[in-house]
Amino acid sequence: MTRFVDVRNMVRWTATQGPEKIITGIMEYLENDFKRWESFDKTPRVASHTPFGVIELMPTSDRETYGFKYVNGHPSNPSRGFQTVTAFGVLADVHNGYPTFLTEMTVLTALRTAATSGMVAKKLARPDSTVMAMIGTGSQSEFQAMAFRSALGITTLRVWDTDPAAMEKFVRNMTPLGFDITVASSAQEAVLGADVITTCTADKANATILTAELVKPGVHINAIGGDCPGKTELDAAILELGEVFVEFTEQTRIEGEIQQMPADFTVTEFWQVLDGQGPGRKSADQITIFDSVGFAIEDFAALRYVRDAVVGTDFFEEIDLVANPENPKDLFGLIGALSPVGS
Amino acid sequence: MTRFVDVRNMVRWTATQGPEKIITGIMEYLENDFKRWESFDKTPRVASHTPFGVIELMPTSDRETYGFKYVNGHPSNPSRGFQTVTAFGVLADVHNGYPTFLTEMTVLTALRTAATSGMVAKKLARPDSTVMAMIGTGSQSEFQAMAFRSALGITTLRVWDTDPAAMEKFVRNMTPLGFDITVASSAQEAVLGADVITTCTADKANATILTAELVKPGVHINAIGGDCPGKTELDAAILELGEVFVEFTEQTRIEGEIQQMPADFTVTEFWQVLDGQGPGRKSADQITIFDSVGFAIEDFAALRYVRDAVVGTDFFEEIDLVANPENPKDLFGLIGALSPVGS
Repeated sequence: MTRFVDVRNMVRWTATQGPEKIITGIMEYLENDFKRWESFDKTPRVASHTPFGVIELMPTSDRETYGFKYVNGHPSNPSRGFQTVTAFGVLADVHNGYPTFLTEMTVLTALRTAATSGMVAKKLARPDSTVMAMIGTGSQSEFQAMAFRSALGITTLRVWDTDPAAMEKFVRNMTPLGFDITVASSAQEAVLGADVITTCTADKANATILTAELVKPGVHINAIGGDCPGKTELDAAILELGEVFVEFTEQTRIEGEIQQMPADFTVTEFWQVLDGQGPGRKSADQITIFDSVGFAIEDFAALRYVRDAVVGTDFFEEIDLVANPENPKDLFGLIGALSPVGS
Repeated sequence: MTRFVDVRNMVRWTATQGPEKIITGIMEYLENDFKRWESFDKTPRVASHTPFGVIELMPTSDRETYGFKYVNGHPSNPSRGFQTVTAFGVLADVHNGYPTFLTEMTVLTALRTAATSGMVAKKLARPDSTVMAMIGTGSQSEFQAMAFRSALGITTLRVWDTDPAAMEKFVRNMTPLGFDITVASSAQEAVLGADVITTCTADKANATILTAELVKPGVHINAIGGDCPGKTELDAAILELGEVFVEFTEQTRIEGEIQQMPADFTVTEFWQVLDGQGPGRKSADQITIFDSVGFAIEDFAALRYVRDAVVGTDFFEEIDLVANPENPKDLFGLIGALSPVGS
């Protein structure tokens, strides 16, 4: 049988544990997996693009466990009452190829994306950061806020979104959780005095939601929204202001902010910072840029965290996904006995 | 909600309908999809190889519906009590990216592989074929027999497998269904007088289970088992005896029997035969070879067939795979309300 965490159980589990505790837990799994980065099978995601959006499969394996995520990105979905991003994920045992774990990943992707941003910011943002600007207050925004409180203790937020209702929603969700929130009237106003700038907008376009003159020395930019060809958020000039950190260079050159730059533009893969192979932040004045697109190993860490965390709880059920005939060579025997002759 | 056909329901449905009726139904969907071959997004499968076996994702899309299959291949599984091949598959709506249908595909892959062989043989085997040799009587063999009875009316089978128990199982399963079966003592003996030769063995090796001198004029070879790099069944000389038909050339050059041949070895994609662009069998004496590796469009056809066929039945259930917050931008609202402050 395959263990299955559906949406109802994921929501119950997250609400019971508290999202910040889960984000912190995923962050630990992420750090462990980024430290053993070179031991993973890595391949850019397999994307199917249409005018409506994209559907992607993101596989990886550490040679013991195989995992993949199905995820879509449809920017016009919210206007039609659907989620921009939905996802589910699977873990399998490499030794026999059987799927062992299936879970919704719409909620879990939000948690792992935030955990990734938090893990990176712990190393790259100034440790004395206290103020974060958030450009874009859609589905991902609250999770980002949680992650930055966990990683850096940030509780002061300056937010901006072109949709006033999305900002109201953000304030409504986060004020009761102890955040001090300023609603700005522009991106320019939101970033005033910010130590960290998080961009998480959804338009599938080469947008410029942040220009170079707005980025002050010492800032850490957490660029989440630009994550597929033709979808960027930052003025290309920003990428020249500091050092750019990526997950997996080969994928980010196609999908990230650096798709705007030449193919030999210098970047650092973040696992090298964790591994001690590359420097992180070099000075208080340096501008650091995390050009995040999301990578399969992050889903792998999140999937394993949930799988391990729900053991012994009632937050999963078992489903019958893999045929298991008594004689493995007799698949037909499962059905043959019941078939009428010549049917 | 996502419709889900688990193993129990797939087996109940197949047993109730009869596997031959389902194979025939899938064959119709396959023919329709092969005829519109050029309208599909096609990409070679994404494979993760380990010493134990392979795990693959096989996506495709017709720009209305997206589908993919997860499938493993672990040749040593049966000796440990597991299936060589297990699989599950998903359909999604391209317009919003939501997964709409999930099903087990261990049984369904066996049905669709057989249906593909049958569809191809209807065009390539001699119409007066009456005898099929089957080399390999593992999990796929009974389904192949069903497909050839449906496609060509073949009821006389000559079988060979290195595992006597597998042959006994085949005879036990198929004799009651009206087949006339001769158990041979070698591959050489099995192919005597056969109009069609089906090879479906599981060894992950460059095996030679059939040599050129055994292949007589007019025979159709249905080569199923060689389907990944390093796994072939036919003597390379056989491929020079007649015309080789493939599903998707780019993938078959990597995975099929023709991996033994130069990169410019001439093949015909089978959809071209259905489409009238290429000839099928040209004469009663010609040797035709279907170098089958399995392609995503076949799973797409099978998935859609099951999805459509179970409408209005109790052979599926609904699962909660996609988070559906009232406000699509308020994913956090699903869980936020229940989280303690500062948790």
